[in-house]
Amino acid sequence: MENIIKKKLARNWFSLLQDIICLEVEKIEKKNSKFIVNRWNKNQKKDEGGGEYRILKDGKIFDKIGVNFSEVYGKFSNNFRGKIPGTSKSAKYWASGISIVMHLRNPHVPAMHFNTRYIQTEKEWFGGGMDFTPCFNDKLEKKWIHNELRKMCNSHNKKYYQKYKTWCDKYFYLYHRKETRGIGGIFFDYKKDNWNNDFKFVRDVGLTFQHIFRTVINKKANKKWSIKDKEKQFLKRGRYVEFNLLYDRGTRFGLDTGGNTEAILMSLPPLAKWK
Amino acid sequence: MENIIKKKLARNWFSLLQDIICLEVEKIEKKNSKFIVNRWNKNQKKDEGGGEYRILKDGKIFDKIGVNFSEVYGKFSNNFRGKIPGTSKSAKYWASGISIVMHLRNPHVPAMHFNTRYIQTEKEWFGGGMDFTPCFNDKLEKKWIHNELRKMCNSHNKKYYQKYKTWCDKYFYLYHRKETRGIGGIFFDYKKDNWNNDFKFVRDVGLTFQHIFRTVINKKANKKWSIKDKEKQFLKRGRYVEFNLLYDRGTRFGLDTGGNTEAILMSLPPLAKWK
Repeated sequence: MENIIKKKLARNWFSLLQDIICLEVEKIEKKNSKFIVNRWNKNQKKDEGGGEYRILKDGKIFDKIGVNFSEVYGKFSNNFRGKIPGTSKSAKYWASGISIVMHLRNPHVPAMHFNTRYIQTEKEWFGGGMDFTPCFNDKLEKKWIHNELRKMCNSHNKKYYQKYKTWCDKYFYLYHRKETRGIGGIFFDYKKDNWNNDFKFVRDVGLTFQHIFRTVINKKANKKWSIKDKEKQFLKRGRYVEFNLLYDRGTRFGLDTGGNTEAILMSLPPLAKWK
Repeated sequence: MENIIKKKLARNWFSLLQDIICLEVEKIEKKNSKFIVNRWNKNQKKDEGGGEYRILKDGKIFDKIGVNFSEVYGKFSNNFRGKIPGTSKSAKYWASGISIVMHLRNPHVPAMHFNTRYIQTEKEWFGGGMDFTPCFNDKLEKKWIHNELRKMCNSHNKKYYQKYKTWCDKYFYLYHRKETRGIGGIFFDYKKDNWNNDFKFVRDVGLTFQHIFRTVINKKANKKWSIKDKEKQFLKRGRYVEFNLLYDRGTRFGLDTGGNTEAILMSLPPLAKWK
């Protein structure tokens, strides 16, 4: 398949998924809150693409959710070339993706994060995943989530789940706290097995995220919680901030390459506390 | 002067200053809140020094203040050796310092940060400074603070103020926001002019910080403020978190070299918000 067709298919999927997810979220909110849409261009002077981030705040179910679609291209600056695969001969790149972070009002519902992306340099690959950050230990929920992820992965390749689950645990780790961010999920990068299969997998990851967050929210959004529970959530969100600013590669990469700051930092919770 | 004497003089000063500052703060609090003291050792297995951090929270004047003294030594791991002056032949180091961050209840009082340190490798130097982060534009206050810093600097060397002020502006800058952290102050590092003079200067920086924060707090701590003012402070504190986790060298260095996480992150505000 031609590279230009691949780009078009990938970016159209990410853009469509943005609509699907946002509709789902507004349905869950039952019109209590709506997304605010922000479009941005990477470069004001020349065309280097851009994106659209949508934020919904202060809902009945969601404290804050950001859904960010982007399609950017151009040339990496010299200090990035060595670090990205397929940039040794040419600095040209094209990248598109969707990323979502949701912070729920109810402290019993985990914070949920999802991202998928497709990148072309002289090489090309998919990346992405999802992970879940509860404040409370709910073994059944953890088991259910991982079971859904295992089923989905197995329908593509029997090796995926174990590989991507392990990668996720390793990635979402706060070294300075010696603790995981949450209960994990799946994480993959530099994925280039077979384009059609990879693309199918990436779409499945997106729809599985929709299925998981809808189910988890429907089950728990009305569960009673106390001020003490909420305090625990605020402290957990402090850890979320620490991870995103200290370790997250996407955040660093975005900020260092002059991405849209508001879109990148939409992942930060509305309110975080430290002891 | 022998190196061991210099170490002793420096660490004793930093430790004394910790007492001086904490007494001053508790005096300002008028017994409404007291410091909680935490001692820590860098290494549980062998002696690599440690420190004492003191935190006062939920006072009438202070939302949170951390005052951290440390004296650590040992050998840098290989990935640090190249980055620190005087470590090319030997990885041995000794470092002592005091650092303070205060977040005030009243949004009209700036967040205030101070740090001084003395380091010995095969080289030796002092570093430190202070900077101020208000939520509101108060030109008179800014002018007064900088004037106090200029006077103090000038009593040591006529070139210090301009040099250290510029360094401060450059250091406390949020590149991704294209904004300064606050109204600046002074910042210096790798300072090795004349040991006795440098040590005198470092002591003066500490006492000047005491003079400045006492004066600023006394003047403003009772000024009326609204919920809207407080909201602005919470957002400003979000920026403070961004700076400390994304850029601050001390934070990165401390976390990467296995320092005490709670002591290092005591600089984070009790509560921060993002839009």
